[in-house]
Amino acid sequence: MDYMQESLKKHYEWKGKLRVSSAVKIDSKEALSLAYTPGVAKPCLEIKDNPVLAYELTRKWNTVAVITDGSAVLGLGNIGAQAGMPVMEGKCALFSEFAGIDAIPILLSTQDTGEIVDTVYNISKSFGGINLEDISAPRCFEVERRLKEKCDIPVFHDDQHGTAIVLVAALKNALKLVKKDILTSRIVINGAGSAGSAIANFLLANGAKDIVVCDRNGIIDNSENFNKAQNELASRTNPRGVKGGLKEAVDGADVFIGVSVKGALSKDMVSSMNKDAIVFAMANPTPEIMPEEAFEAGARIVATGRSDYENQINNVLAFPGIFRGALDARATDINEAMKIAASNALSELVGDDLCDTYILPKAFDKRIVPAVAKAVKQAAIDSGVSRL
Amino acid sequence: MDYMQESLKKHYEWKGKLRVSSAVKIDSKEALSLAYTPGVAKPCLEIKDNPVLAYELTRKWNTVAVITDGSAVLGLGNIGAQAGMPVMEGKCALFSEFAGIDAIPILLSTQDTGEIVDTVYNISKSFGGINLEDISAPRCFEVERRLKEKCDIPVFHDDQHGTAIVLVAALKNALKLVKKDILTSRIVINGAGSAGSAIANFLLANGAKDIVVCDRNGIIDNSENFNKAQNELASRTNPRGVKGGLKEAVDGADVFIGVSVKGALSKDMVSSMNKDAIVFAMANPTPEIMPEEAFEAGARIVATGRSDYENQINNVLAFPGIFRGALDARATDINEAMKIAASNALSELVGDDLCDTYILPKAFDKRIVPAVAKAVKQAAIDSGVSRL
Repeated sequence: MDYMQESLKKHYEWKGKLRVSSAVKIDSKEALSLAYTPGVAKPCLEIKDNPVLAYELTRKWNTVAVITDGSAVLGLGNIGAQAGMPVMEGKCALFSEFAGIDAIPILLSTQDTGEIVDTVYNISKSFGGINLEDISAPRCFEVERRLKEKCDIPVFHDDQHGTAIVLVAALKNALKLVKKDILTSRIVINGAGSAGSAIANFLLANGAKDIVVCDRNGIIDNSENFNKAQNELASRTNPRGVKGGLKEAVDGADVFIGVSVKGALSKDMVSSMNKDAIVFAMANPTPEIMPEEAFEAGARIVATGRSDYENQINNVLAFPGIFRGALDARATDINEAMKIAASNALSELVGDDLCDTYILPKAFDKRIVPAVAKAVKQAAIDSGVSRL
Repeated sequence: MDYMQESLKKHYEWKGKLRVSSAVKIDSKEALSLAYTPGVAKPCLEIKDNPVLAYELTRKWNTVAVITDGSAVLGLGNIGAQAGMPVMEGKCALFSEFAGIDAIPILLSTQDTGEIVDTVYNISKSFGGINLEDISAPRCFEVERRLKEKCDIPVFHDDQHGTAIVLVAALKNALKLVKKDILTSRIVINGAGSAGSAIANFLLANGAKDIVVCDRNGIIDNSENFNKAQNELASRTNPRGVKGGLKEAVDGADVFIGVSVKGALSKDMVSSMNKDAIVFAMANPTPEIMPEEAFEAGARIVATGRSDYENQINNVLAFPGIFRGALDARATDINEAMKIAASNALSELVGDDLCDTYILPKAFDKRIVPAVAKAVKQAAIDSGVSRL
C-alpha cells in the first residue's frame, strides 16, 4: 500500500483525528444549573481552598498536552507547528487508544527557547502532564530542563526519553541473550541529537561505562566542531579516548545504536565489531544498515524502527504507559527512577519467549500499558514525586 | 434543590466534564501507519505547502479554546485559574452539547496583560477560535484588542460580547412591544466593568444615542474617580451631560440595564422612570431589583439572568451559535457585523409570539444555534473575514 497517499485520503475523510465531547448531558435547566451556573461555584471554591482537588473535580487527573514548535517533525525537519498538527493529533489519538488518556495537541507559534518555556509554563495548570514533541536539539534540552524546574506536573520530551527507554529495554534483553554485561559492553551511538543524547544519558543511568558517541563530524569531543550540549556529553562519555569517526568507534564494539541517517553503517563496519554484535539501526524510514546486510556482515541481533522487520523499537511501547502511571500517581515529575522502572517493565514482559528475534514486546501487546503504568506509578510513589 | 451541594457531589462523580477521544481506531500496524507514521507525513507536507488545508486535514475547523486567567470567575472574583476549571469545563461542555464544537479549556498561570497576550497568541494556531472567559476589567479590553490584532482566528471575550448580544436582542424586542425606538430611548447602564462597557458599545453600534453609564462612584465621567477605559467610554456616552449617581441617571429613563450588584435599583428609582419602563436586572444570583418589586413600582417589562423568572438573559443563547457560524465560515475574526447578525437572529426567533414575558427564545430552543450560526456565517462572508 502507498501509505502516504492513502493516509492523505483518510485525513480528508477524518477531518481531524480527535473529538472533544461533554461527559454530561445538558438538556434541561436543572442539568445546566449543576454542570454550570449556579451550582458550579461550589467545586470552584473547593479547589480554591484545596488545589489538589483539581485532580478530583476536574479532568486534570487524566489530561496530557502534546506540545510542539514544529521544528523537528518526524524526519521532515522544521516544517512549522501548523503543518505538524497531523502528527500531534496522531500522537494524541495514540494516548487515547492505548492508555485512555485525554490528550490535547498544542501548536506553538514561537521557536524561541525562552518564549516556549514561558508559554508552556503559562498553560501548564490546564493539564496533568506535558509531552513535548518534535522540538529540535539542542533547544529541546534547555526547554525541557527549565520546564521541569518550573512546572508542578510531569514534563517529558518523548523524542528523547521515550526512545531511550524502549531502546534500553531492548538492549538489556539483547545483552542477556549474548551473555554480556551492560557495565562492560562497548557501546557506540551514532547521532548526537535529541534521541542520541538521551540514549547516552539513559545508558549511563543504567550502568553503562564505555559509550562512544558520534555525529556527522565524527566522535564528539570538547572542540568547537560540536555544540555545547555535545561538548558536555563528550565529557561524560568515551572513557578510552577513542579518536576519529564512526569507523574507529565501532571497531571492536559490542553494540551499535544508530539514530542518524540511512546507510550510515557499512557492512565492513559491522564486520569490525566484537563477536555477537548487536546492531540497533533506527534511522527512519530507511535504517543505517538494512537488517539483511547487517546479518550478512556478522551481526547477531538486529533491531530497527520499522514494523516490517522483527525487533521494532517503537516509542508507542513506552509513552502511553509512562503517562498512565505518572497520571495515576498524580506525579509532579517523570524522574529517572520512573524511566528505569518503565524500561525494566518492558524488558520483563518478554519473559521466557526471549530470543534473537523477540527482544521487545510487540506494539499491540495489551499487557504493555498496564505493566508499564504499574511500575511507573510505584516508582513515582517510592521516589517521592506522587501526590497520592 | 441545593444546587451548590448537589453540583459538588456530581463533580466528584463526573471526575471532569470533558472527554477527548480518537476518531480513528488504531488497533493494527496498518491503522498506525495511516493515522501516524509513516503515512502522516503526507498530510503534514500538504499543510506546509498550503496552510489553509489545516481546516481540511486536522480538527482546526471545529476547535475552540476557552481561556481564563481566573481573575473574575462567575461572581466569585479572583479565585485563580485552577479553581476556575469547573466553569471552563462547563463552558466547553456547553459548546459541545449545544453546537457540536470541540472546546478545550486552557488555564493561564499569569494575570499580566502582556504575558496573557503572548501566551494566547503563541498557542493560537492550535485552534479555530478563542473564547476568552472570566478575565477582569479593564485588563480584558486590552487583552482582547491586542489578541484580535495578532491572531488570524476569531478572539471573542464572551463576558463582554455574549452578554451584549443577548441583551440587545432582548431590548429590541422589548422596545418593539412598548413602541419606542432605540435611537431616541434613554438608556441607563449600571455597572461599567467588562459586561457594562460592552453593552454600551454594542448599543451604540445598534444606533442608541442616549446612554448614561453608572458605576459605584456614580455616573462615569472624565475624572480620576474612574479608570481610563471608563473615561474613554464616558466621552462617547451621556450626551445630555447628566450629573450625579444612579438616582439622577434613571429619572425619566426608558430602559434600565443592571450588570452590577444585588439591590442596586430601588422601587423609587423604577417609579421615577418613563412610562412603559424596561428593567433588565442581571446581577447574579440576586438581581438589582426582584421582578415582583419592579412590577409593583411600575415597570412594564422585566428581564433577569435567572432561569426561574420569565425573560432570562443568558449567554448560552449566543456563544454556541456565534462560534458555530464563525468556524463554519473559517473566519479570521468575529467582527461587529457578525455580532449584530447574531443579535438580530435571536430577536427574530421570537416572531409572532412576542409578548411582555417572552422577549427572547428559551435557552433550550433547538432553533437557536442553526439560526444564529447561519446569520453569523453569512455576515462573516459579507464582511470579508471568511476564508471560504
